[in-house]
Amino acid sequence: VTNHNHISALEKIIGKENILTDPHDTAPYEKGWRDDGGKAAFVLRPHNTNDVSRILSYCAKNNIHIIPQGANTGLVSGSTPDTSGAHCVLSLSRLNTIFHIDPINRTAHVGAGCKLSALNATLEEHGLYFPIDLGADPTIGGMLATNTGGGRFLKYGGVRENTLGLRAILSDEDGTLIDLLHPCRKNNTGPDLKHLFIGTSGAFGIITEALVNLAPLPQQTATALLIPRTPESVNTLLMEMERRCGNYFSAFEGMSGEAIKRALAHSPTLTNPFGRDAIPNYAILLELTRTWTPRVGEQPLTDILESILSELWAMPEEPLENALLGDPAKLWALRHALSEGVQKSGKLIAFDIAFKRGDVMNFLMQMHKQLPAQFPDIAICDFGHIGDGGVHFNLVVAKDDPRLSDNSFETNLRRWVYDCVVREYNGSFSAEHALGRKNQMFYDLYTPQNIKNINHKIKNLLCTGEISAILL
Amino acid sequence: VTNHNHISALEKIIGKENILTDPHDTAPYEKGWRDDGGKAAFVLRPHNTNDVSRILSYCAKNNIHIIPQGANTGLVSGSTPDTSGAHCVLSLSRLNTIFHIDPINRTAHVGAGCKLSALNATLEEHGLYFPIDLGADPTIGGMLATNTGGGRFLKYGGVRENTLGLRAILSDEDGTLIDLLHPCRKNNTGPDLKHLFIGTSGAFGIITEALVNLAPLPQQTATALLIPRTPESVNTLLMEMERRCGNYFSAFEGMSGEAIKRALAHSPTLTNPFGRDAIPNYAILLELTRTWTPRVGEQPLTDILESILSELWAMPEEPLENALLGDPAKLWALRHALSEGVQKSGKLIAFDIAFKRGDVMNFLMQMHKQLPAQFPDIAICDFGHIGDGGVHFNLVVAKDDPRLSDNSFETNLRRWVYDCVVREYNGSFSAEHALGRKNQMFYDLYTPQNIKNINHKIKNLLCTGEISAILL
Repeated sequence: VTNHNHISALEKIIGKENILTDPHDTAPYEKGWRDDGGKAAFVLRPHNTNDVSRILSYCAKNNIHIIPQGANTGLVSGSTPDTSGAHCVLSLSRLNTIFHIDPINRTAHVGAGCKLSALNATLEEHGLYFPIDLGADPTIGGMLATNTGGGRFLKYGGVRENTLGLRAILSDEDGTLIDLLHPCRKNNTGPDLKHLFIGTSGAFGIITEALVNLAPLPQQTATALLIPRTPESVNTLLMEMERRCGNYFSAFEGMSGEAIKRALAHSPTLTNPFGRDAIPNYAILLELTRTWTPRVGEQPLTDILESILSELWAMPEEPLENALLGDPAKLWALRHALSEGVQKSGKLIAFDIAFKRGDVMNFLMQMHKQLPAQFPDIAICDFGHIGDGGVHFNLVVAKDDPRLSDNSFETNLRRWVYDCVVREYNGSFSAEHALGRKNQMFYDLYTPQNIKNINHKIKNLLCTGEISAILL
Repeated sequence: VTNHNHISALEKIIGKENILTDPHDTAPYEKGWRDDGGKAAFVLRPHNTNDVSRILSYCAKNNIHIIPQGANTGLVSGSTPDTSGAHCVLSLSRLNTIFHIDPINRTAHVGAGCKLSALNATLEEHGLYFPIDLGADPTIGGMLATNTGGGRFLKYGGVRENTLGLRAILSDEDGTLIDLLHPCRKNNTGPDLKHLFIGTSGAFGIITEALVNLAPLPQQTATALLIPRTPESVNTLLMEMERRCGNYFSAFEGMSGEAIKRALAHSPTLTNPFGRDAIPNYAILLELTRTWTPRVGEQPLTDILESILSELWAMPEEPLENALLGDPAKLWALRHALSEGVQKSGKLIAFDIAFKRGDVMNFLMQMHKQLPAQFPDIAICDFGHIGDGGVHFNLVVAKDDPRLSDNSFETNLRRWVYDCVVREYNGSFSAEHALGRKNQMFYDLYTPQNIKNINHKIKNLLCTGEISAILL
């Protein structure tokens, strides 16, 4: 059976206009944000759960390997085909219906292809939002498949904690619908199977609809930049903030001086909050939010933050080198400019890693000490969500560095960093980008054999066909 | 092979002093809070994960059916043996070590047998606690196995959302240890298998250790009682509270007048907050908390709550019939007295159910309308966690009601209520008490066949022996 036959058969299932075969049309589906792209046999664009079921049934019967794709904003090659040309992309982007918003339950029932921005725009009139804060604009299905975290995890948790229910289609001859679209916040009537589909990049089944938790929109925000006196001070500041204003605390983001420098260099419209050329080695962006505007007699959040900063200044441990209140829009603009600034400053080798919170600064100090000896001339431009232990550990090499022509350079570097993260710190080699082809070898390497065996058996139990870029 | 042989063999594994066989010794392990009790072949009391592994290995090889038990505070016969005398109780109560408290990560690594009260007592000096608020004092392992929710779910989520990692032992010939004791808050390196063990009452494996999330201890609390003008007003009040003081909002508990009456009658030391004999049909206990005491210039929480009540009074929808601020200790004493007061007022037939939040009052109104016609002379004494859609729907029949001698009466009543909950409202027949022998028939009845098949296959994939009161 050739691709041509498959295409004819699939056209009968979802309509000719919903299958892309022309290389010009398929190109946007073949290349990710941070990969060189592969080649898709063809691209399928179904409109609803039922069509996905019929597609997966056909593909399971015919051994067609499916790569599910949302907005294709992932960073680990989880949504793009490899270069073989044998895999087929299943775009969920047309399953973008917002079926129902329930303001009393604070939930939304949406199609997997609905974009985060579209959902939040619709929710605004209800004073609600889906409280996962990201730089990108992924689909809700993609967010579930990768269990995204983001910058306000500290307050709201990640996607997993904000999903009440979902529908998924298995890759089997029936294209079985697993209907877990339960609207209850409390439900203990058996194994909670939705967790098999969240964060598994489609390997166990393809999420087509979700019922997600919403939060009241913040109405007031206050932000500050803290310069910790020592790396240890970062932990003190984090704990003290939780104790002294835990109810308001919504972000505690670390930014290395190297990353800030590159952001300022790349985006001349940004203002340097530290004034002139003074850039600290490390800064913390702190955010307080609340769901209302101050009432008569109630302090604005900025005043509260100011009081807390005075308290931190007065601590005998002296955790602060400096602290400045700043406009939330400007400080977040700087924070959000870090990623592109770092990326544009050279060849980026990025690690999305996590630790228990107290280990973040220990790991960074160790890297600053050991990396130059092992791999000289590499800039450490980290930033991340220190409040939840997540680090975007970005290494930047000059674009003309001759080592880049040797494939083993990046492989060895990655292996050396991850070995430290996983083996020395019991950390995570994928904090919030989930699994894609880029992490396959690290999944293979670091996952204990008995866990791999269980994953593999569950995969075989649920699916006869392959429906993911990652092989479990 | 007789029990005698098994006991000798198991004595060699964990020591003679850790096996109970005398009926006098085994009795406390055989009867639950709300069941008449069964009969255990014997009771095993291991001290650590390794002993549990050796026990489960032996039992899997010898087809011994194990019932895991924590503090035996469950309400659905999930931790007690049946009357056959063929099952053996595995008490986890001696795995009560608090291995490590990490104040920076806000986590505790504890043995499954550690009691909630013991953990919280140890955490107090760190200004932290495990934020699951319950009337009972279960073990942490029991809480994970049943995924308990409680009264502050609204703010903190349940046990599932507050578990970072765990260790579990499978019932197979090796007594395989599944080590998922990961300390990271963000970790997306494959399927999150811990969710197979949380809320499954031991059916997939026995949790022996857990790494749980902690929260800063509240330092200030304010409470009020609201009397909603209509059942619909309850939803308005809930949404308005989240919008107007979401950051502080920690409980929204519904209490029926019938339940309040019985609590006051049973506990003469309680004061009636409504004064004299006036008891409303329905009241809401509202709680605000924060992690600090007010600073200079900052309003006490009580003043804030008072402002919000004025705002609610002024709403054109007129959601309030009455509202009164009250001492948190006194109001919570009333709330916590409801369960026993109801139980002591007759024969209790209890339902732990959940709905999407907007359906709670609709369901209650429907029951008040339909129950008397279907099943006359039954008092509806509900209370519950309306903020998360959970309802303790308690029906009370006079103890001398002749219908109680007919077994089919309770069965028919249960079936009639659950049919309404599950089939008319898409609600949950077990909100936060999880599964036990008491819900087996409802799991069998309401779980879709393809979900049951998956559960059963996962069970067989993980375990060769039976290690739970519930059969999946």
